[in-house]
Amino acid sequence: MTERIREFLRNRREDGPCLVVDLAVVRENYESFAKALPDSRIFYAVKANPAPELLALLVSLGSCFDTASVAEIEMVLAAGAAADRVSFGNTIKKERDIARAHALGVQLFAVDCKAEVDKIARVAPGAKVFCRFLFNCAGAEWPLSSKFGCDPDMAVEVLDYARQRGLDPCGVSFHVGSQQRRAQAWDDALKSAATIFRACSERGINLSMVNLGGGFPTRYLKEVPAVETYGRSIFRALRKHFGNCIPETLIEPGRGLVGSAGIIEAEVVLISQKSERDDVRWVYLDIGKFGGLAETMDESIRYPIRTPHDGDPLAPCVLAGPTCDSADVLYEKKPYELPISLEIGDKVLIEGTGAYTATYASVAFNGFAPLPAYHI
Amino acid sequence: MTERIREFLRNRREDGPCLVVDLAVVRENYESFAKALPDSRIFYAVKANPAPELLALLVSLGSCFDTASVAEIEMVLAAGAAADRVSFGNTIKKERDIARAHALGVQLFAVDCKAEVDKIARVAPGAKVFCRFLFNCAGAEWPLSSKFGCDPDMAVEVLDYARQRGLDPCGVSFHVGSQQRRAQAWDDALKSAATIFRACSERGINLSMVNLGGGFPTRYLKEVPAVETYGRSIFRALRKHFGNCIPETLIEPGRGLVGSAGIIEAEVVLISQKSERDDVRWVYLDIGKFGGLAETMDESIRYPIRTPHDGDPLAPCVLAGPTCDSADVLYEKKPYELPISLEIGDKVLIEGTGAYTATYASVAFNGFAPLPAYHI
Repeated sequence: MTERIREFLRNRREDGPCLVVDLAVVRENYESFAKALPDSRIFYAVKANPAPELLALLVSLGSCFDTASVAEIEMVLAAGAAADRVSFGNTIKKERDIARAHALGVQLFAVDCKAEVDKIARVAPGAKVFCRFLFNCAGAEWPLSSKFGCDPDMAVEVLDYARQRGLDPCGVSFHVGSQQRRAQAWDDALKSAATIFRACSERGINLSMVNLGGGFPTRYLKEVPAVETYGRSIFRALRKHFGNCIPETLIEPGRGLVGSAGIIEAEVVLISQKSERDDVRWVYLDIGKFGGLAETMDESIRYPIRTPHDGDPLAPCVLAGPTCDSADVLYEKKPYELPISLEIGDKVLIEGTGAYTATYASVAFNGFAPLPAYHI
Repeated sequence: MTERIREFLRNRREDGPCLVVDLAVVRENYESFAKALPDSRIFYAVKANPAPELLALLVSLGSCFDTASVAEIEMVLAAGAAADRVSFGNTIKKERDIARAHALGVQLFAVDCKAEVDKIARVAPGAKVFCRFLFNCAGAEWPLSSKFGCDPDMAVEVLDYARQRGLDPCGVSFHVGSQQRRAQAWDDALKSAATIFRACSERGINLSMVNLGGGFPTRYLKEVPAVETYGRSIFRALRKHFGNCIPETLIEPGRGLVGSAGIIEAEVVLISQKSERDDVRWVYLDIGKFGGLAETMDESIRYPIRTPHDGDPLAPCVLAGPTCDSADVLYEKKPYELPISLEIGDKVLIEGTGAYTATYASVAFNGFAPLPAYHI
């Protein structure tokens, strides 16, 4: 919670929940990454939060951009970035979207199979491609499924195929899993990356780039290692696996850059019990799973919540959203501790919500408007 | 799939997925409910699909409306319904939203605790309230959590308290769980309802209404009983538990009214494998969990999917959405059978998607636009 956000909320008059992001914190986070990984180019994962003010700030700081769609590419260009600072990092792209991106000047594309190489070869001839490989991401709070990437052996085939199709196979990418708290994870992944580099080299393909992905955590309720720790581990792993031929690296922080910069202000709508015999307290907020807190899915992310009664005795409660949807419950399997003195009408502050909130909000589920966001 | 939808899709020129709802099917569904439950008033659950054309049709058919928010109340009134045909059925309401609803003429409110009664008593004096009680909903594809409703004993206390606060305690409601395939479920719930009626009567409170809720299923991949079956079971249960004093009843179908009327057209963006050794086929569509198919959460609802290759040999696949989010996978634990001959670029039709799709779509996750919807 920063003084600027506090001041903004004091003066806000609109009704309903809102997200406020302090751009000064984003700047600090960016500078921490740049300092901790001085040899890596930063490709901000736009999907985390594509607010124009935020993108403009990052353009001015020299950031590059990892995008998921043509709309995101257009937003980044509108914010003033040159197309050579943009990666189309989604491995799942329509051929006509690749063509649009190429027409906008984008030259760097992610792939994880030959079919995607074919599309790029047809409509973006000569483009650079990097292949995402699958990596077992133990230690992440959100281990990724195998939705993205292919087996490392197959990555070599895909890169070789890209060369045959006239593309420029420049490197590999991986993702250690979202909110990764084990800095060692990058070491394991870089070992696989180096193996792919060697196998490609034997085929006369000289890869030059490793995309280290995202996964850098933001602090929710648990402590996480500082970004410097990650920087040191990654540098050590690069030396260990690539020796004196350290490749160009790029990182794709999203949550790590903007998560800690945002606060959602919400309101307690109702506090109730279900029976005289059962003292479980249900606390209902005016924001829930469909209003921006989608990442509470499976209770994965536990946001810190501040109340006007912090310091009073705590008791567990089930925390739920305001919609008529029984799935709109934030924390139930592991109840959330909140002050006993919490009251209907209280404003609460949900911290660490700068990333993956406003854009997840539904257009109008139950008639509730999407989450308003202010970037100050 | 109706001829009208087929014709509409043939002439559509825009890119990207879309929902098309055939209002003629909604009309048929409405008439089936009206015929199967001739003594019940139909309160359409607006949250299922609040499209203005749909609301206007239902107004013309004589429907009443169950609403979750002031925005939904305003949509219903804008479609031409009188305020006495509107129930504010969300048990979680801000006091100022109750005041707004009351100012708009709404006179019927759901409650499930004394704190909610207090709010209504303060800003909507004299209003009618019904208390939602908790009911164990075995047999539903989506059993509801205990988010809504209270223990039947507590319901009696809440209704008594409403009378003390000057409100008009008119009845009870319950919900047998979404997509309930066991018509018998209503019998169990009506037994509890009758018990509450008797307990209230002993305190001099004469309840007159039972809100039978929703839960009426739409057909996805499994067969479901016809609405007549539900009508007969409910009538039998009412006679059994209320004898000759059958209360006024109302039903709140949402999915049951509009689910079967809608089709989503989507496109196959990519088909790939993850390794030479692993023959699992991944099929990626241009719509996923964050683009309108939120109800595939936990793989709960399995939509029927038509392809241009129906009739060809089938093989299982993992089906996923287009976003850079590893949670955006539709069916993986239980893979989905699709034709082996399916190709990138094929259009597929996702059936039974008239309810709980367009409004669940995120505003802009990954830069993807919300799902366009056409009600024809």
